[in-house]
Amino acid sequence: MERNDAKKPYALILAGGSGTRLWPLSREEMPKQFLALCGDSRTLLQRTALRLLSFTDKDRLRVVASGKWKALVSHQLLAVGMDSGFIIEEPEGRNTAPAIALGMARLLASGASPDDTVIVCPSDHLIKSEENFAAAMETATRAASAGNIVTFGIKPTNPDTGFGYIKTSRAGDQWFHVDEFVEKPDAENARKYVESGRYYWNGGIFCFRLSDMLRAFEAHFPEGEAIASADSERVALNFLAAPKLSIDYAVMEKADGIVCVPLDAGWSDVGSWDSVYDNSPKNGSENAVSGNVCLSGGGNNLVVGCERLICGVDLDSMIVVDTPDALFISPKGSSQKLRGVVQELKASGRTEVAESPTSARPWGTYRVLSKGDRQKIKKIEVAPGKRLSLQYHVHRSEHWIVVKGTALVTIRGHGEGASAEETFVHEGESVFVPKGKLHRLENPGKIPLEIIEVQIGEYVGEDDIERVEDDFSRAGQTG
Amino acid sequence: MERNDAKKPYALILAGGSGTRLWPLSREEMPKQFLALCGDSRTLLQRTALRLLSFTDKDRLRVVASGKWKALVSHQLLAVGMDSGFIIEEPEGRNTAPAIALGMARLLASGASPDDTVIVCPSDHLIKSEENFAAAMETATRAASAGNIVTFGIKPTNPDTGFGYIKTSRAGDQWFHVDEFVEKPDAENARKYVESGRYYWNGGIFCFRLSDMLRAFEAHFPEGEAIASADSERVALNFLAAPKLSIDYAVMEKADGIVCVPLDAGWSDVGSWDSVYDNSPKNGSENAVSGNVCLSGGGNNLVVGCERLICGVDLDSMIVVDTPDALFISPKGSSQKLRGVVQELKASGRTEVAESPTSARPWGTYRVLSKGDRQKIKKIEVAPGKRLSLQYHVHRSEHWIVVKGTALVTIRGHGEGASAEETFVHEGESVFVPKGKLHRLENPGKIPLEIIEVQIGEYVGEDDIERVEDDFSRAGQTG
Repeated sequence: MERNDAKKPYALILAGGSGTRLWPLSREEMPKQFLALCGDSRTLLQRTALRLLSFTDKDRLRVVASGKWKALVSHQLLAVGMDSGFIIEEPEGRNTAPAIALGMARLLASGASPDDTVIVCPSDHLIKSEENFAAAMETATRAASAGNIVTFGIKPTNPDTGFGYIKTSRAGDQWFHVDEFVEKPDAENARKYVESGRYYWNGGIFCFRLSDMLRAFEAHFPEGEAIASADSERVALNFLAAPKLSIDYAVMEKADGIVCVPLDAGWSDVGSWDSVYDNSPKNGSENAVSGNVCLSGGGNNLVVGCERLICGVDLDSMIVVDTPDALFISPKGSSQKLRGVVQELKASGRTEVAESPTSARPWGTYRVLSKGDRQKIKKIEVAPGKRLSLQYHVHRSEHWIVVKGTALVTIRGHGEGASAEETFVHEGESVFVPKGKLHRLENPGKIPLEIIEVQIGEYVGEDDIERVEDDFSRAGQTG
Repeated sequence: MERNDAKKPYALILAGGSGTRLWPLSREEMPKQFLALCGDSRTLLQRTALRLLSFTDKDRLRVVASGKWKALVSHQLLAVGMDSGFIIEEPEGRNTAPAIALGMARLLASGASPDDTVIVCPSDHLIKSEENFAAAMETATRAASAGNIVTFGIKPTNPDTGFGYIKTSRAGDQWFHVDEFVEKPDAENARKYVESGRYYWNGGIFCFRLSDMLRAFEAHFPEGEAIASADSERVALNFLAAPKLSIDYAVMEKADGIVCVPLDAGWSDVGSWDSVYDNSPKNGSENAVSGNVCLSGGGNNLVVGCERLICGVDLDSMIVVDTPDALFISPKGSSQKLRGVVQELKASGRTEVAESPTSARPWGTYRVLSKGDRQKIKKIEVAPGKRLSLQYHVHRSEHWIVVKGTALVTIRGHGEGASAEETFVHEGESVFVPKGKLHRLENPGKIPLEIIEVQIGEYVGEDDIERVEDDFSRAGQTG
């Protein structure tokens, strides 16, 4: 069927990114692409997928991500209607060039033709105008079908020194020839570029025919070609053997016949809280607020709240980001200093930089409600039909209280002969899992299972867990 | 024994005050006097009691407070070494004149002589110099023994319009004759008062012989005399019959022979977050911080944190007050607008104005860790030998998990014949209390009992509680 419909492009979403520029909302374990920002309830990854699905099919969309993001990616995309099997797992993060080659290999293996076009797109950017984006993609697909490797040029709104620039010479009315890719410039050059009107920001979005990129790999990045055209079982090995290079450095800056399609769609990489404010809907006082927020006087503030009530008086041009375990406050314009502060926090051993109060697992999600020396309390949601791995803890006993749905709980001793006890636990009921006992939590029902887990013990760290068996067919992995 | 030691004064602490000027730390259910402020781990009430105990005896100290503060007062003062029985309970709040009369009645009933002197003192003020305070009290006690009713004059540091003023004419070197008590003046008059050097702030602290105040009552506030000199069983009735008047209005402004002893002891009524900042110890950048706070750049900030990490970048002269369920942020100088904002919050139905995440009960304390539609999670601490009242809930089941200590739990059905089940629950164990079942929690041990309570139900409000029996001898009251 795919071969009969060659006009529709494939799409590769690169979801490998990590970073804490939007700390404390983003954490090492919860990077930007998985966050809902700027007044939209869907995450940047979800919005990216839905954007691409407006002009291609589910079965042509893939997400390239390292294993540690697998659960989050599938949790978020299944939630917006994707079918399973769309994740292409990176054996490890090796930058964009190997990632794209890996994606190409999997597409070819799953029946894509070398003549098919592919759109490659980051997962953590914001696009305001879906229409303009779709139009640019349509243009790019035609340009790619004509044998061009297409990059998208974003018209600079300011002489930003944080982006690479694309130098173009006008030729043709819909796509231009690219003269040169320029690394992040200094302020002086950035100014010149913007004034000249011939430079665009490089947004890291690309479109090409598989065959053309394979040729470009051959010429400039043979390790990429070795990945993309390998037999399935060699793909991973070749991937791990490839150098960590960006697609710009490995191919774009060297290949000929690269064209640029301008993208005027309100693009932003939302790289700071200031840019989150700029891209958020505002109320009468130019405040961008979410959560339980009450502001009196002042204006031009960004307040990102959670459950807690936030009350601000006479706040002006401030940024307030509240999460269950960490709060960030700064005047606008200072938010780029956040990176350094977060590094200091990490150096001083604060776990709030890496750990996220919310986590996704193959079986569902959990949220830490409260942490103490001898206890930790979690809200756990297990998806219908899913179950956690059979496990035990050396230092803590666990109490599971069912808030919603019905749980099937297995508790048994160790060793072959040990007798297993399976119990159904219903709404409002609870079950006790003693220290050291093997146990498993499962949702046999048709609705999500919500439980409160209270851990009590001399040590309640996440690493006190022994998994006896991981059954991915039914779910498994970290519980 | 008291009669042999007439030189030591009695002390009445007035702890009836309420207010939310320091919201969200102070709540309707947790007024200022019960808060630890300005870098001291002891609450204002505790510091007030310890200050008075530096020159009088435990058995001469009483706290006048309405019933709703009884648990908090005794919890906090027992914690700083007071013996029980020091609380004089107001049948209801009727302002300071009836409160003082009530205190006098109880003192006389417990063996005080009319010649004994009494110091009356609010519970929610800050005193920096304990030495100067003690010296002023010593002076005042001598003035009182000489037949004067003494008020204390605080040298104004600014033309504040929030206080009443005392006009004096110099006479004698240690105490002056009071010409006049002046109500809160306008800015213009306040300025004149301060410039004249003859005006003091009225700090609401007094010292007198019981007999002299009884005479003053007789002349100017007969209802007070009716309270102070009634038989024990008539005291409460007469108290309830008295008008709600301040001691200033009822007596001080009218009586003759009132003298003023200057009090130069770094007094503050800590009536706003700005004044909390002014009275707090500062670090190098003039920041006053408590909790897990990390400030980078800026300075002159007050940051009052709780468990959560608070990270501020380039904050300047800001006030940040964080509590588990509410956060307040404002620039310094705007904190007096808080009162109006809090009123709006209350009008809009926010429970964070009245309810406090921490509460004291006769049996111990509890803290709300997490609240949801269908669940509420509390950390409960029951003092050794104490127990909650026998109770049941219509809408929720409860799960008790013992974190520390040992619990004795009673669960039984309703009606005479119903069988009662008493179980010991040990560390790491839990017990389930079904909806509608009568239950009681008790700490039979020698160390505090810590439990996590998880409430599950279609309604988890505090008012879903039916108490079957209150056993104050062993504890009782709200569970």
